[in-house]
Amino acid sequence: MSQPIDFWFDFSSPYGYLMAERIDAVAERFGRSVTWHPILLGVIFQAIGSHPPVDGRSAKSTYMVNDFHRSARHLGIPYNPPSRFPLPTQNAARAYYWLAGQDEVKAKHVARAIYRAMFVEDRDISSPEVVIEIATAQGVDREALCAGLQSPEIKARLKNECEQALAAGVFGSPHVRIDGEAFFGADRLPQIEHWLHTGGF
Amino acid sequence: MSQPIDFWFDFSSPYGYLMAERIDAVAERFGRSVTWHPILLGVIFQAIGSHPPVDGRSAKSTYMVNDFHRSARHLGIPYNPPSRFPLPTQNAARAYYWLAGQDEVKAKHVARAIYRAMFVEDRDISSPEVVIEIATAQGVDREALCAGLQSPEIKARLKNECEQALAAGVFGSPHVRIDGEAFFGADRLPQIEHWLHTGGF
Repeated sequence: MSQPIDFWFDFSSPYGYLMAERIDAVAERFGRSVTWHPILLGVIFQAIGSHPPVDGRSAKSTYMVNDFHRSARHLGIPYNPPSRFPLPTQNAARAYYWLAGQDEVKAKHVARAIYRAMFVEDRDISSPEVVIEIATAQGVDREALCAGLQSPEIKARLKNECEQALAAGVFGSPHVRIDGEAFFGADRLPQIEHWLHTGGF
Repeated sequence: MSQPIDFWFDFSSPYGYLMAERIDAVAERFGRSVTWHPILLGVIFQAIGSHPPVDGRSAKSTYMVNDFHRSARHLGIPYNPPSRFPLPTQNAARAYYWLAGQDEVKAKHVARAIYRAMFVEDRDISSPEVVIEIATAQGVDREALCAGLQSPEIKARLKNECEQALAAGVFGSPHVRIDGEAFFGADRLPQIEHWLHTGGF
């Protein structure tokens, strides 16, 4: 049986959002499952000496802000530029790992709702209250999630996931790995499909 | 009548090579022409405070070296990783502008041959002799091209093209502009086709 596909992303990454809306359906067509790994790009960038590409000043930054929106339209995915961007995502990531420990399907459901809250509904998902509201609207127990977000195990899990991502060569979001082959960016979806279809080309 | 599509690239850019192999055929399907603008990425990077993404050390660099080759296979374009990369391309760019002043079709033909010399035949296109050999094999007059490569007008033209690229917001290679809309990277070919097909989406 083949290994799950790994999918690393930051909840503040527009291209990560686009990948999250598509990757499981693409994998499923080829009988593959996907393991999601929310990470903190700030930790990754600090470790590798990189910096966020969108700084609000450079030509590349201006380009990317337009490209986020156009790439979403190209894929037919709803997108409204968020007022606050980027923002801290440790609460969203911790909620994911806590939920995934119990029910991975529900965890992905909540994760997609968190992404849409940021990139469609313009909500501030850095707030633990907002993350908890989104999860409880999906039937998650409020008290248990509140405790989970504060648990040392979940905090350590997120830290460990960031370290593992670095060890795996992750340098941005989204980063997908299929049987050892790395694909960076939502724009690699056609190559991912091609790879799954051919078993490597 | 619609304006030509602008295509900026550096002769040392693998993704620029992939775009050069496809952009005119895509544009032609929609009744559009393409104006080619070879530039020097070193000049662009210095002006905007950026640096070459491939440094031979970082995780991103390792990723990109693999992605160059895989992206070529994905598009069905021949690619052999060059021994020397990146390399200076002012001779190739100057040859292009000198030729384009006389015959744009032939200039593009020679430009594609220069790109293949670098990314298929592993030749050192930084050498003026190599550029001249490639051009003369396509029927270009040797003496006239030698003089052209040394002419102050051609040197000034390349300098001016780099300045115009910066003014247009170019920050890497390939960069394509269609009616004011910017597309960065060979991976934007599907969006370029979508844009030309719909007239903007």
